[in-house]
Amino acid sequence: MKFCSNCGANVQLRIPDGDNLPRYICDNCSIIHYQNPKIVTGCIPEWKNKILLCKRAIEPKYGLWTLPAGFMENNETTSEAALRETQEEANANVEILGPYALFSLPYISQVYLIFRARMLNGQFEPGIESLEVALYKEEEIPWKELAFPVIEETLRRYFKDKHQGIFGMHVGDIPV
Amino acid sequence: MKFCSNCGANVQLRIPDGDNLPRYICDNCSIIHYQNPKIVTGCIPEWKNKILLCKRAIEPKYGLWTLPAGFMENNETTSEAALRETQEEANANVEILGPYALFSLPYISQVYLIFRARMLNGQFEPGIESLEVALYKEEEIPWKELAFPVIEETLRRYFKDKHQGIFGMHVGDIPV
Repeated sequence: MKFCSNCGANVQLRIPDGDNLPRYICDNCSIIHYQNPKIVTGCIPEWKNKILLCKRAIEPKYGLWTLPAGFMENNETTSEAALRETQEEANANVEILGPYALFSLPYISQVYLIFRARMLNGQFEPGIESLEVALYKEEEIPWKELAFPVIEETLRRYFKDKHQGIFGMHVGDIPV
Repeated sequence: MKFCSNCGANVQLRIPDGDNLPRYICDNCSIIHYQNPKIVTGCIPEWKNKILLCKRAIEPKYGLWTLPAGFMENNETTSEAALRETQEEANANVEILGPYALFSLPYISQVYLIFRARMLNGQFEPGIESLEVALYKEEEIPWKELAFPVIEETLRRYFKDKHQGIFGMHVGDIPV
């Protein structure tokens, strides 16, 4: 950040009075521009002992597999965002079963919130951000071709819970 | 937002190609400035059948009571943020017992994440953003003087769960 988005003046990076972290400050219009983590939310869509994965058609990690998930938008709820992403990326209609994983990725200032969800029918097709969408049994999951460590961690825990017959709520951190 | 924070040119609000929501776009340096919800995280600090509340020394809701909570910062985890806010606002040292409530407030584009936490000792004192900090039994909670509906909803569910002897994970939405 170099310029104030409100008045166009140059901003300075310094610690405001009464604060303890450097912020981008506009000395012209006195606005402090805070920067905060973003929420990525999505689903583990279930259908007949399989789950739905999307092959990314965008960077980063073009061509690798992930769960349908994306940045939460202003003015929506976490579950609305998860349903929207599942619709946009996989054209799949699901109902949410419950929250499953809440992982912090502090090195990129993101928080992932993944819900378990049940597909309402077996229909799906790639959205604009997916090259391909497919249902996978546990033994078919392309572990070596997953896009992100947070997705691998979520799926490892998911199948472990599934074997034990009980799905907990998982809160954790993903290191760099 | 009126100016590009990267180059200082005027931004335009319109739907980018391949998107479906209006964004602030800089036609000079081609940056799209996305705006996303913020996470507010904090604790329900427990001590000997009481919980710790803070009387706000800042707007909004100056003089009303809330749980220690605040905006999550970049490069921290959700639990680090909750511990930090509890330290900053109440000078209380706690250990986190688990996630308790995840509420979406779509009308202000915030997501509240509240953990249950155990105070490590009975010590606390107001931080710079608190006028007063105090331990309350359930029957002493100042329900009429709580700062935010999301805090009331969290505490109502907390005491209901406490009576039933089991604390679930609560996911919900707070309407306007």
